[in-house]
Amino acid sequence: MKKILNDPRDVVPEVLEGLVAASRGSLRLVDGTTAVVRVRSPGGKVGLLIGGGSGHEPLFGGFVGDGLADGAACGNVFAAPTPAVILDATRAVDGGRGVLYVYGNYAGDNLSFDAAAELAAAEGIATETVRVWDDVASAPPERVEDRRGIAGDLFVIKIAGAVCSVAETLAEAGRVTRKARDGTRSLGVALAAGSIPETGQPTFELGPHEIEIGMGLHGEKGVSRGTLGKADPLVEDMLARIVDDLGARRGDDVCLLVNDLGATTWMELLIVTRKAHRLLAEAGISVHDTVVGSFCTCQEMAGFSLTLLKLDSELRGYYDAPARSTAFTKA
Amino acid sequence: MKKILNDPRDVVPEVLEGLVAASRGSLRLVDGTTAVVRVRSPGGKVGLLIGGGSGHEPLFGGFVGDGLADGAACGNVFAAPTPAVILDATRAVDGGRGVLYVYGNYAGDNLSFDAAAELAAAEGIATETVRVWDDVASAPPERVEDRRGIAGDLFVIKIAGAVCSVAETLAEAGRVTRKARDGTRSLGVALAAGSIPETGQPTFELGPHEIEIGMGLHGEKGVSRGTLGKADPLVEDMLARIVDDLGARRGDDVCLLVNDLGATTWMELLIVTRKAHRLLAEAGISVHDTVVGSFCTCQEMAGFSLTLLKLDSELRGYYDAPARSTAFTKA
Repeated sequence: MKKILNDPRDVVPEVLEGLVAASRGSLRLVDGTTAVVRVRSPGGKVGLLIGGGSGHEPLFGGFVGDGLADGAACGNVFAAPTPAVILDATRAVDGGRGVLYVYGNYAGDNLSFDAAAELAAAEGIATETVRVWDDVASAPPERVEDRRGIAGDLFVIKIAGAVCSVAETLAEAGRVTRKARDGTRSLGVALAAGSIPETGQPTFELGPHEIEIGMGLHGEKGVSRGTLGKADPLVEDMLARIVDDLGARRGDDVCLLVNDLGATTWMELLIVTRKAHRLLAEAGISVHDTVVGSFCTCQEMAGFSLTLLKLDSELRGYYDAPARSTAFTKA
Repeated sequence: MKKILNDPRDVVPEVLEGLVAASRGSLRLVDGTTAVVRVRSPGGKVGLLIGGGSGHEPLFGGFVGDGLADGAACGNVFAAPTPAVILDATRAVDGGRGVLYVYGNYAGDNLSFDAAAELAAAEGIATETVRVWDDVASAPPERVEDRRGIAGDLFVIKIAGAVCSVAETLAEAGRVTRKARDGTRSLGVALAAGSIPETGQPTFELGPHEIEIGMGLHGEKGVSRGTLGKADPLVEDMLARIVDDLGARRGDDVCLLVNDLGATTWMELLIVTRKAHRLLAEAGISVHDTVVGSFCTCQEMAGFSLTLLKLDSELRGYYDAPARSTAFTKA
């Protein structure tokens, strides 16, 4: 793969420097770490720290900003951040009311954030954790805690950012964010692999006409491998699995995210959006908002994911709150 | 290329249906055409109509919304919209003060918009035209009117949308938009071609290590073909050509757009952003705002473009005005 890089070993600090540069003075690096935080986090509020492996840009750093996260702790490419980085970021975003951790449910991230939480507690900083496990392909419903976090991170971070801006307590921020997490389901389809910047090697192999529904962001096994056909039946299959798993019913109100995994065009994303809206209308499920674009990627992977967030009146209010960051702005 | 399509001949209406679906009720199709317009355009203002060939999504339809364009007339993939579509869209966006046309400078678009302008005039609708010709690679400075329009469209549309919201006259909207156009310069680099949806064939050929600086969105010849090296010297070369052509000097204030041409990752875009900021800082040019993402694409083309918009106090005011559309939101 041709990539526009300098030394591949420098991608993480260079990406973070670029993110800070693009932030119009609103972000800074935590000295000597691979964490970015807001320059002026409003004091006295519950802090929101997100994070995970790099290589999925603009996740996570692109979602640090007004009404979103206060900081992001970033690991190497496809590797969890260390407890030390998370702890430094935790100190930086703590405004005295504790810090909510929101991140994707992967073994490495769980270990690192849990270790950081213990270290933070020893310093008197309270934390709560909400692991995002939206990928319905990665485990059956009875083992939801084994599911991976994918693009649904964006919706959970959006709600968490809004509630952390106003919540009186860390427990309240955790309660609302957990409700958003529990109402979020995603499913992706891969058409072609992205590559690892250091080696240039693809993260998995698919035949010239093959696709895999539910393949994970790092090439983890999905639910079905098949042949690429038309867009409409593919969307119908994927959305049915999501709606079923979510238990969404006639009269429900959802937000829809159509997320590019890296190299899929807006042309395709909009064709997918069209079909998803038709299907949801037929099912009597109303769409409160639709977000289209590149949010949770795996390098230049071709494919997309669909995410639904089921709203109630409380979540709708938090969803509609304004937000502004490098990669996601809601006016 | 694997693409998520239905019948490739249906891509344009399907994309527009998806765009309308994603717009949360704010856009509608002009009946029987391939034009989208705002459902509730504020009356009594100067209308702003943009448009061009499809295949560059989210350009143009993604920039129809509050504080941006009132409508977009869309052609087939890589083909200009017809005068009839432009005329229908012109009628739909005219609020009594005339309509400003803003589009990229290509022969087919020029012919179609000019023909539509004549037809509109015959119906009593005044129009003015600002052709965007930001691509410094496509002709020397003394033949600026031969240059192509590329990602700089976004900045010119942003300013035009803001001025059309408040301008008393079409002439005033044209004056400010022309100033923005004259202060906008871009240059792109292609690493790998996108493909044409109907045929699946690439739009051009590049060797496995080749890049072409200045290659156009449809594979038009650029200024230099070379071998892909490191990101930093590439950005240095490209930015120097833009700064020189723009005549930007120490003390100037610019907006920077780092635009993905289709399949380039945010990781790479942020590494490019980092170097562009370093170079601009060294040159004493301050960056008022930075926009990163996929705005003007050529299907899954790999590569990126850099755009600078030189601000004065008038343009800064219009640039900072809020805007909201499917693909670009400024809060």
